[in-house]
Amino acid sequence: MSAQLQVHLLPSLVDAGTLQGGVAIVIDVLRATTTIAHAFHAGVTNVYPIADIPGALSLADEFRQSGESVILGGERGGVAVPGFDLGNSPLEYSWDKCQSKMLIFSTTNGTRALLHAKGAERIVTAGFVNFSAVCEILLEEKRPIHFICAGSNGHIALEDTLLAGAFLAALLPHRPVPMNDSARLAWDAFECHGLVLTEALKLSAGGMHLQSIGLGDDIELCAEVDRLMLVPEVRYDGKDRPYLEVGSIGIERRLWPGK
Amino acid sequence: MSAQLQVHLLPSLVDAGTLQGGVAIVIDVLRATTTIAHAFHAGVTNVYPIADIPGALSLADEFRQSGESVILGGERGGVAVPGFDLGNSPLEYSWDKCQSKMLIFSTTNGTRALLHAKGAERIVTAGFVNFSAVCEILLEEKRPIHFICAGSNGHIALEDTLLAGAFLAALLPHRPVPMNDSARLAWDAFECHGLVLTEALKLSAGGMHLQSIGLGDDIELCAEVDRLMLVPEVRYDGKDRPYLEVGSIGIERRLWPGK
Repeated sequence: MSAQLQVHLLPSLVDAGTLQGGVAIVIDVLRATTTIAHAFHAGVTNVYPIADIPGALSLADEFRQSGESVILGGERGGVAVPGFDLGNSPLEYSWDKCQSKMLIFSTTNGTRALLHAKGAERIVTAGFVNFSAVCEILLEEKRPIHFICAGSNGHIALEDTLLAGAFLAALLPHRPVPMNDSARLAWDAFECHGLVLTEALKLSAGGMHLQSIGLGDDIELCAEVDRLMLVPEVRYDGKDRPYLEVGSIGIERRLWPGK
Repeated sequence: MSAQLQVHLLPSLVDAGTLQGGVAIVIDVLRATTTIAHAFHAGVTNVYPIADIPGALSLADEFRQSGESVILGGERGGVAVPGFDLGNSPLEYSWDKCQSKMLIFSTTNGTRALLHAKGAERIVTAGFVNFSAVCEILLEEKRPIHFICAGSNGHIALEDTLLAGAFLAALLPHRPVPMNDSARLAWDAFECHGLVLTEALKLSAGGMHLQSIGLGDDIELCAEVDRLMLVPEVRYDGKDRPYLEVGSIGIERRLWPGK
């Protein structure tokens, strides 16, 4: 497919090879990519996304043995993992807990989406919280752009689709290019729900689940546009393991396409 | 998930077991479920959906040996299959070719979506062409309703999503029930594109492909709302093979939610 702006509504819908030569924007609004941005804002030096809990625990051991200061964060079923330092609520990631530490992070959907993006030449993570900062780098990109929505346990998620749609609405006036059908759906979703973001997130399946386990307060935080001015970007360490660090900081303009 | 109105944007996104006890509406607007409706209108007695070409040819042999009058129809890559009587263009299915015959039908996406729906208690097929007729039976249904979009070679298709959204727009005033996130996306798509159906179908990936192989004229036919007043429904023969026959005929009201 030759579309230069593609939305993939689930990681499993990314065809093998399609990301090659392109830029992947990984989206898990509720809550992984929101929380990762907050963790960087709170001072973590980098974030290792790890798919499984034993893998996360063993990597933490490895880094601690080499003298690194490490914290473990993440969730399963939305709640904190026993033995981890922090869960997946953005506000848990405070300066006193995070400053100058490495974060090893494992969540149900977002972490896996991030690892699934590995075929792309450049990989960044996005939430509503760092919308304009991500937009700014996308406006400079000439390569095909792929928005990879994490979804929720294999189900397409409204909130991730909405954010992909917001990016399209912001980019298309500057870059009118072919897009795939899922991109049109995402754009439509943003047209319909962009003015009532928090309400849309509350009625999404993911938002309903958070409210049901007492974490409804996280939703407003995840719907906050442009609170943070940083773009987490994937690098590879000496052992070819992907990790995130802050690839750029600072926005020049507010690019949010909503009113 | 307890949602009573669910949209599945691809057959592969239907969780095992989720259709049990429910009604499945199989949608492949461009063109299988449009063509099936036209074939019934042209007089075929029933339609056997078959996944693969050898299977279709061998079933045709079997029925012919028992004295049935059979035609073979379908496509691969959008074009007619060598050895088949008809392709997948709705207008090929004329009275003189179809009257009182069985149709054995194999297409890339629609046939497979139909076979994928087999866990449901009731399975019908829908296009824009038989919208109100399908709506009428859905208004009577008390069971959970699943719209299964065929998509196109594993990619989510705008046109199928749009039709699912039109059904939601028509049903929700009569049946305000929980829906899944994909249903919201479908509804949004209909809100944005429902008034410009033909144009939306033309710019979809499937519509672009049809135009590229000289079959663009099919698109307007597939976007025609309520041309036919019949609902193809799955039954099972003595060998437990699924086939379609016309389960109901006649609409009492026009239920199209567009203007």
